[in-house]
Amino acid sequence: VVPVITLTTDFGLRDAYVAEMKGVILDILGESGHLVQLVDITHDVQAHDITEGALALEAAALFFPRSTLHLAVVDPGVGTRRRALVLRAAGHVFVGPDNGIFTPFLGGDWAAFELRAAEYRRPVVSQTFHGRDVFAPAAAHLIRGVVPEKFGPPIVDPVRLAWPEARVSAGSIAGAVIHVDRFGNLITSIRLELLGSLDSDVMAWISGKALPVVGTYGELPRGAPGALLGSGNRLEIAVREGSAAGLFRARRGTRVVVSRSSSKNSSRKRRQPGPRT
Amino acid sequence: VVPVITLTTDFGLRDAYVAEMKGVILDILGESGHLVQLVDITHDVQAHDITEGALALEAAALFFPRSTLHLAVVDPGVGTRRRALVLRAAGHVFVGPDNGIFTPFLGGDWAAFELRAAEYRRPVVSQTFHGRDVFAPAAAHLIRGVVPEKFGPPIVDPVRLAWPEARVSAGSIAGAVIHVDRFGNLITSIRLELLGSLDSDVMAWISGKALPVVGTYGELPRGAPGALLGSGNRLEIAVREGSAAGLFRARRGTRVVVSRSSSKNSSRKRRQPGPRT
Amino acid sequence: VVPVITLTTDFGLRDAYVAEMKGVILDILGESGHLVQLVDITHDVQAHDITEGALALEAAALFFPRSTLHLAVVDPGVGTRRRALVLRAAGHVFVGPDNGIFTPFLGGDWAAFELRAAEYRRPVVSQTFHGRDVFAPAAAHLIRGVVPEKFGPPIVDPVRLAWPEARVSAGSIAGAVIHVDRFGNLITSIRLELLGSLDSDVMAWISGKALPVVGTYGELPRGAPGALLGSGNRLEIAVREGSAAGLFRARRGTRVVVSRSSSKNSSRKRRQPGPRT
Repeated sequence: VVPVITLTTDFGLRDAYVAEMKGVILDILGESGHLVQLVDITHDVQAHDITEGALALEAAALFFPRSTLHLAVVDPGVGTRRRALVLRAAGHVFVGPDNGIFTPFLGGDWAAFELRAAEYRRPVVSQTFHGRDVFAPAAAHLIRGVVPEKFGPPIVDPVRLAWPEARVSAGSIAGAVIHVDRFGNLITSIRLELLGSLDSDVMAWISGKALPVVGTYGELPRGAPGALLGSGNRLEIAVREGSAAGLFRARRGTRVVVSRSSSKNSSRKRRQPGPRT
Repeated sequence: VVPVITLTTDFGLRDAYVAEMKGVILDILGESGHLVQLVDITHDVQAHDITEGALALEAAALFFPRSTLHLAVVDPGVGTRRRALVLRAAGHVFVGPDNGIFTPFLGGDWAAFELRAAEYRRPVVSQTFHGRDVFAPAAAHLIRGVVPEKFGPPIVDPVRLAWPEARVSAGSIAGAVIHVDRFGNLITSIRLELLGSLDSDVMAWISGKALPVVGTYGELPRGAPGALLGSGNRLEIAVREGSAAGLFRARRGTRVVVSRSSSKNSSRKRRQPGPRT
Repeated sequence: VVPVITLTTDFGLRDAYVAEMKGVILDILGESGHLVQLVDITHDVQAHDITEGALALEAAALFFPRSTLHLAVVDPGVGTRRRALVLRAAGHVFVGPDNGIFTPFLGGDWAAFELRAAEYRRPVVSQTFHGRDVFAPAAAHLIRGVVPEKFGPPIVDPVRLAWPEARVSAGSIAGAVIHVDRFGNLITSIRLELLGSLDSDVMAWISGKALPVVGTYGELPRGAPGALLGSGNRLEIAVREGSAAGLFRARRGTRVVVSRSSSKNSSRKRRQPGPRT
């Protein structure tokens, strides 16, 4: 089996930073004749936006084979006293700064260790680019078979982000947009588990507008908005072959509410027009 | 030989969608110990623009080794009744929606099969992301050796796009811009076969301007426009070290005409100033 | 050991050009059963900007394993009489146009050969895309074991760029911004060697403003500017979690000066306010 390393950063693809990391990894692995599959998750995380990095990881990481190593570097605290860590969770391995970027994987069993051992870093560690000098070498040494325990002492209190969630109250679920994708689809904090089985008595509200909840884009007329269960098992607001972000001038944080109307009486709906942003 | 999978989508590189597809592929191949070379053709196809996806594939696919598997997902019809297919053509294999994206490869011999067999999909298929749940698994299983016939019934009438072509009439060829590249070069629907052997008696017309036809950028003065045979064997309008798209405010669909003047009498040319847009 | 090929171009990732190059490489290597690791350094070099390509290579190339082959195609002179070359330098191999893009690697021992042998090109060479038709095949044949000497006659006078440097005069070093990265950090032509050991008596000047020189971003208040030694061993102007390029309206070429004040007398500093742009 060829080991897989994924990379998630806010470095962009215009600069050579990501390539420097890959060069360091291949240089360390080359010595031991290891082959590796390098896969980019994204490098276009908004600069310094740890939550966006965590959301990209949450979306993609667990589709990779067990034991995949996920290297994630959104690291506004580089050069400060923030810790560096390796985390074993969900059958995968994660390497990056201890700033909350791995929050989505701290729900079940996990074990974390600080990246401290000098022999698994580059000989000279810059103050500004631990992606290349600390995290990439750690990833390569882990692939070579060095166990996480060898890197440093256990971390029992990794930083956790305040994770975007949704609130359930009588008859409605209040959440928010957590990501706007390339198509202008609005991915929300409202998860499948909360929604239970969606039915036609449910409406989604955004920016004061009520939208039907549908099963797929194809049920919407072209250019019309609706809500549906997205591929990451979250409620999504979409416009068929159009941009919901544009239509509703929505961004991360925009409020989204799902309300279940227990009655079929539509006049009652009119008197209770639902939440507005 | 290491099998090659190329990927062409309109998903962009900011979201994690492409990585989700790659994760699924590697996960399925990992079980069987298969190694694979993953190569991106482009993920910046304009959202929902099937023709642009088809043009990217046409430009790049056949440079890859025989038997390369080309996974292409520009899929505005996801979740509707559009079919999914695997296509054998030109010694390569293509996997994607049956919406015309493989039109360029339907000119010679081909065979196509519908992707229907549940055992070659992900256990749960989302309504919005068949790239990950249907096409990526199909690609991985094909690399593992499952033959196309196993996926479902033959498709004898795959969707074909109205393909951008050029019209030849007495003394001229009328075509259009089909792609504007990063440099602002205008790639047209006028192919080498139509042009025959270009000679100096040919002029290209765009936006009411006549341009010389040259052999290479180097024959143009810096900043000057001209027409030449591009690397994809299509007539191209270029500005040396500049942008033809900018100079002519051209976009896909902008009309381009090549006229052969059968006479050396340049005054005659003046009286027949050629077509205007 | 799996051979590594890096790619650096100004082709962007929207068009299929980079994929065409990779297809050609894999096609030639496939015949001989060779496995290869393909790594993008960047494809977002400003169109035709040879210096920017050279700076990207300088930043990343030598982090890769020895013997890595670096394919670099920023080639405004394609189709003119500019030479094509393979260069052995610094234990690595470089392939691209002879237009100065490899200037950073011509400081020590090196040997260069012209890419002329027809058998190591594609059968038909376009006038506009030597990346695909000349350089990619050369890279593949080099990986297959063809020695550089086989490609053509030695080149003893490769083109060298006027390289952005810094000038040292009494008490100060005058340089310029050479690159603006994604974060808005300003990388300058002032190298570590010139700076010697930075101490707190040093100030950096840009756009008429004096900035403290710090060890790491973390020493700056959020949103405050400072100068520090960047990861490429060059002086860098940064704003903590902000954009120095935005704050100072700086771009490549903007003047940056470091002055050492030999006295602790701060009133003297006030009377000599340092250089302005």
